[in-house]
Amino acid sequence: MKNSGLLVILSGPSGCGKGTVIKELLRRNPNVFLSVSATTRLPREGEQDGIHYHFITKDRFESLIAEEGMLEYASYCDNYYGTPKAAVEEKLCAGKDVILEIEVQGALQVMNKRPDAVSIFILPPSAKELEHRLVGRNTEDRDTIDRRLAKAWDEITYASRYDYAVVNDDLMEAVQEVEAVLIAEKCKSVRMEHTIASIVDKNC
Amino acid sequence: MKNSGLLVILSGPSGCGKGTVIKELLRRNPNVFLSVSATTRLPREGEQDGIHYHFITKDRFESLIAEEGMLEYASYCDNYYGTPKAAVEEKLCAGKDVILEIEVQGALQVMNKRPDAVSIFILPPSAKELEHRLVGRNTEDRDTIDRRLAKAWDEITYASRYDYAVVNDDLMEAVQEVEAVLIAEKCKSVRMEHTIASIVDKNC
Repeated sequence: MKNSGLLVILSGPSGCGKGTVIKELLRRNPNVFLSVSATTRLPREGEQDGIHYHFITKDRFESLIAEEGMLEYASYCDNYYGTPKAAVEEKLCAGKDVILEIEVQGALQVMNKRPDAVSIFILPPSAKELEHRLVGRNTEDRDTIDRRLAKAWDEITYASRYDYAVVNDDLMEAVQEVEAVLIAEKCKSVRMEHTIASIVDKNC
Repeated sequence: MKNSGLLVILSGPSGCGKGTVIKELLRRNPNVFLSVSATTRLPREGEQDGIHYHFITKDRFESLIAEEGMLEYASYCDNYYGTPKAAVEEKLCAGKDVILEIEVQGALQVMNKRPDAVSIFILPPSAKELEHRLVGRNTEDRDTIDRRLAKAWDEITYASRYDYAVVNDDLMEAVQEVEAVLIAEKCKSVRMEHTIASIVDKNC
């Protein structure tokens, strides 16, 4: 019997290098997919529908919420952002692993709805380094940086609510740890029930 | 702060290739150690004290039981077999991982006493293959083979009591899965508490 893929929640504060970890993870593992979020905001310059986001109308988004078609969602600045369930389920049923790169509040929603989801929090190597990375960008005014820093600290306090925490100091090490989590989770005996049963049954 | 090593329970029926998996695991990971059991039986030809077993007297073994110095023990044919706690704790405190290669009944004792222990059951690829391996040795009479087979089937029914189940079809794949379990377990957020706290604290 074919096993279902893993639903993986991946969060981490801005500046922790989460995007780079995911990019490398996808490059090395063709069986792992990144879920594309849906949003009601308009595409920005260069953003492609179905790649950066699924750009949908507010009506469509609210219908999806009503019919429980969203794994998680939130609204910011009058726009909705969320994870459509159907595309995720399709990949999982086909035995593919699906990464949800989502914020803490969305992650908590998914953990509630899907206790089988595997959650990983990406940590910066230190508080100093995170601050350095966020300030060092130097593209935003001090207010924006302060807001981003405050949000990052707030998010990090949720790290212990995740199943796993991976420190992104050395990129390849962080990727290897995420890969190890995926392999280990598939070896969990609750996920090996069919394999165990098939070996035991042949004895009858 | 230095993290403590992992206490790893590894079981599997005779013929599953557990010994080969452990040998390769130790060769590739100098930070992983195999616990040496204690026994009251006499050494057989070629067996060395402290390598194959710690050969100790019945009095000494019973003292260890009385002072709770055994992580698990059992008696077969009037002899005791067990895992002395002190040597294991010493390695764990030094941050080393320790493998206990023990039978199901001993494993259940350790799971009870040490809920932080990570348990892995090594499975043969199929019932047929296990039977083939056990019968194929051709060094024992039919009665011995039958007893060994019956014991193997009995043990496999306990696989789902372990945290993880690893199928030993391809040796290197099985070793990689055990390695992934060790890496992933160290990333569990309950084991990352100090790291998370140290990052959060620096913000104060």
